[in-house]
Amino acid sequence: MSTEYDVSKQNKVRQLREKAAYDKDTVHAVLDAGLVAHVAVVQDGDPVVVPMLYGREGETVFLHGARKARVIRMLEGTGKVCINITLLDGLVFARSAFASSMNYRSVTVFGQARLVDELEEKKRALHVINEHAMPGRSAELRESLQNEFKMTGVIAVDIESASAKISDKMPEDESCDLDTPVWAGVLPLESRFTTLQPDSLVQEGVAPSDALRALQNKRL
Amino acid sequence: MSTEYDVSKQNKVRQLREKAAYDKDTVHAVLDAGLVAHVAVVQDGDPVVVPMLYGREGETVFLHGARKARVIRMLEGTGKVCINITLLDGLVFARSAFASSMNYRSVTVFGQARLVDELEEKKRALHVINEHAMPGRSAELRESLQNEFKMTGVIAVDIESASAKISDKMPEDESCDLDTPVWAGVLPLESRFTTLQPDSLVQEGVAPSDALRALQNKRL
Repeated sequence: MSTEYDVSKQNKVRQLREKAAYDKDTVHAVLDAGLVAHVAVVQDGDPVVVPMLYGREGETVFLHGARKARVIRMLEGTGKVCINITLLDGLVFARSAFASSMNYRSVTVFGQARLVDELEEKKRALHVINEHAMPGRSAELRESLQNEFKMTGVIAVDIESASAKISDKMPEDESCDLDTPVWAGVLPLESRFTTLQPDSLVQEGVAPSDALRALQNKRL
Repeated sequence: MSTEYDVSKQNKVRQLREKAAYDKDTVHAVLDAGLVAHVAVVQDGDPVVVPMLYGREGETVFLHGARKARVIRMLEGTGKVCINITLLDGLVFARSAFASSMNYRSVTVFGQARLVDELEEKKRALHVINEHAMPGRSAELRESLQNEFKMTGVIAVDIESASAKISDKMPEDESCDLDTPVWAGVLPLESRFTTLQPDSLVQEGVAPSDALRALQNKRL
């Protein structure tokens, strides 16, 4: 199996090409690090973009929503989708506005959307999505009910092509700007979980599981 | 001037309607809190979504990129765009997978894209974008050069319609799940800047400005 996505007109990174990556490991790593996917489709000729939770299994990205939700009906009917996941890692303060930028990890995926209707595949897809956002949680909860599966719409997007773009650098100023007496560097941005907040109905003696505590300490 | 966006087929929130808001103050607040916009356009009939820095002035969202960048050329040629900005605020751990969800602030904007070519408007738009991500920085830097303006492409999107969707809640479990001995509640997610990292060329005695220090302590 190829370890790289083919570079085509669709996924070719044209600007800042030195930041581009097409190898599956890099693309998968960003997909696995993010929590919110921005999913774009064409509806009646116009663009629509919707934020969604997701999960990845091999070369497939699974999305879900209420079965009747507009986004599920759009995805069901649309064919091609484009998905971007971007994690902002910091602001790059250069010595000119022009050279200032940001550090980030970003992935763009192109593929066909397909409604997952067969119950076993749907169960597996939902497991993948749930475990992506809440690792270990599935084992702590009751099985989902038939009715709950019915009310949930699942979309599979098999990755046709993809690219990653990653920036992790200090400013790159023009030499003529270097004698400016202005501070330059990076202000890192960190997304992290804070403190677990129980709801008022948690039973006495029930503490967060090890999986929840591990997630609490994770950085995105 | 109206304080609400008209609700149309385009911007109507259909799922979880109780979380929807159409008033301009709420929409503007989310637009002003985010840093990365996901901008969707239709290219050759297919959807494309690109993450971009942005800034808002009144009812206009400004975007920028390299003048020759594909995204600028796409936006220049496309007409209609859809922009989503989502800030993930936490994971909601309910007592079933079905009731589990997330807390977030999200805004979707629809409008026409227009290339900003006139120099004075372009300067103002870039000022808005720069100050959005890096408040106070413009005053610390030299003026941009004619050549830098020329190499930068600016797009204006006048907001035609918009909606916000905000979720900030504890789990809402079915009553039959409430006697389950499982922890439930919210794990908040926080995006915050960490410590300013100077590059190796900062001149002796040059410290970060007050504006940079204030940004360092800001939460998104």
